[in-house]
Amino acid sequence: MLGPGDDAALLRPTPGQQLCVTTDTLREGVHFGPLFRAAEIGHKALAVNLSDLAAMGARPRWFTVALEVAVGALRPPLIDGIARGMARLAAAHRCALVGGNVTRGDRLALTLCAIGEVPPGRALRRDGLRPGDLIAVSGTLGDAALGLLRLRAGERRGAGAQLRPQPRVALGLAARGLASAAIDVSDGLARDLGHMLDASACGADIWGDALPASRAVRLRSDWLSLCLEGGEDYELCLGVKPSHRDRLQRLASALGAPLTVIGEARAGRGLRIAGGRGQRARRLVARGFDHIC
Amino acid sequence: MLGPGDDAALLRPTPGQQLCVTTDTLREGVHFGPLFRAAEIGHKALAVNLSDLAAMGARPRWFTVALEVAVGALRPPLIDGIARGMARLAAAHRCALVGGNVTRGDRLALTLCAIGEVPPGRALRRDGLRPGDLIAVSGTLGDAALGLLRLRAGERRGAGAQLRPQPRVALGLAARGLASAAIDVSDGLARDLGHMLDASACGADIWGDALPASRAVRLRSDWLSLCLEGGEDYELCLGVKPSHRDRLQRLASALGAPLTVIGEARAGRGLRIAGGRGQRARRLVARGFDHIC
Repeated sequence: MLGPGDDAALLRPTPGQQLCVTTDTLREGVHFGPLFRAAEIGHKALAVNLSDLAAMGARPRWFTVALEVAVGALRPPLIDGIARGMARLAAAHRCALVGGNVTRGDRLALTLCAIGEVPPGRALRRDGLRPGDLIAVSGTLGDAALGLLRLRAGERRGAGAQLRPQPRVALGLAARGLASAAIDVSDGLARDLGHMLDASACGADIWGDALPASRAVRLRSDWLSLCLEGGEDYELCLGVKPSHRDRLQRLASALGAPLTVIGEARAGRGLRIAGGRGQRARRLVARGFDHIC
Repeated sequence: MLGPGDDAALLRPTPGQQLCVTTDTLREGVHFGPLFRAAEIGHKALAVNLSDLAAMGARPRWFTVALEVAVGALRPPLIDGIARGMARLAAAHRCALVGGNVTRGDRLALTLCAIGEVPPGRALRRDGLRPGDLIAVSGTLGDAALGLLRLRAGERRGAGAQLRPQPRVALGLAARGLASAAIDVSDGLARDLGHMLDASACGADIWGDALPASRAVRLRSDWLSLCLEGGEDYELCLGVKPSHRDRLQRLASALGAPLTVIGEARAGRGLRIAGGRGQRARRLVARGFDHIC
């Protein structure tokens, strides 16, 4: 491999694999605020891109970084910290930095492009959900939104899910062939599941009492809103045929990304919510999630 | 191919090829100013990335776009124009847009990641120049810098090389196996050739009377500085063994990218300039090129 230093990087793809490519930006004042440490900025910029690859069932391989830095703010400790946080996550997922560039701007921003690999026909997609499929989500919901509230109040404690989200790469790989559809929860469960329903041309009911939430989230009166509308959880939302449920849940638990079944796809359109399975469901209209720190 | 719309794009690489990946940003007030039309912004953002692929001898295949737009400036005519200029150049090079995202920012900026393909071992590189190789450059030098001066004076006429640079993709492909080294001229010939010399651990003499310049550039008293230090020409600077010179020049002319031999690599280090071949050479110290419009 010819890495950074030439006009472009030269990479050797694995024979017979498809490529999976995504790009995402993290911007100061929009996606992160002053309480973020440099290493957390670097970590998160890569994490959100790896989360997209995870949602496709792709194995991360390479990434590029375009850095925008305010004039006068190109301080070595900042850049070192960003690089350190990014390198640690990249090493954990064996994903190599292969190129980048630096531009003067108004404030700090990082645009990454991540490239993964997936065997042909095995990628997870948004459009594979079918009526009768169960809907499952990894980990817990709402912690990142709660973390954002804590950061806005000037408090880093309890904000880890917001500061250092963990992309569910291993779960995405394990879900190949078992999940019928997948999306990552970046804009809030209701919105992201809505995208899956739109792509799959079906509807779904979700059950409020089944939503997985941490104790800290559950104690709040707005816990349901945090779970449904809070963004940046970077968990995976999967469609699963009932016959695959047990196997996928066992795999997920073994990977430390426990899967909770939260609802079921149905014919028709639209996302509905019920108190619990079998209870009367009403149409769910999600408010927009706003990233700004 | 699964294009934009899922979490990431799925691409089918050509079996047996290496990938070539680059990323570059175009930013309002740094890389383009108010006299740029929207289509020119879109064109140039892609052109500078394709130029990097050209310098590697790679065939462009796919690209992603991360767009940063100032709040309130997300006007459909602006976005349409950018898309139109980008799509036209992408179609000319059969390079497909496969993903992107939009972020709120302070001003317009576009970060593209372009992916090309090249057969293993055939990529052009910066580090292959050897003493005795000729140094050649495509097209003419200094027109983009002159265009920038015209734009700063409020004049679009004669600024085409600045507004709509043409990446030398076909020349890069033709130069595989014939050029010993390649780089694209983005920061000015002296700087970019300097990068090639550093990578190749050799020196070079260039001949002032051989530098290819348009009549408009040649008429100026600062023409030499425009040619050597003016950025954004996006021509290719190539190293060529004397035995390959004629063949490469014939190919380049047929592609409409005529190649001019402007100097020769030598043992030792550093870039020197002479009035002409065989004349006394002095060390060339290039001033930095500043993009700001």
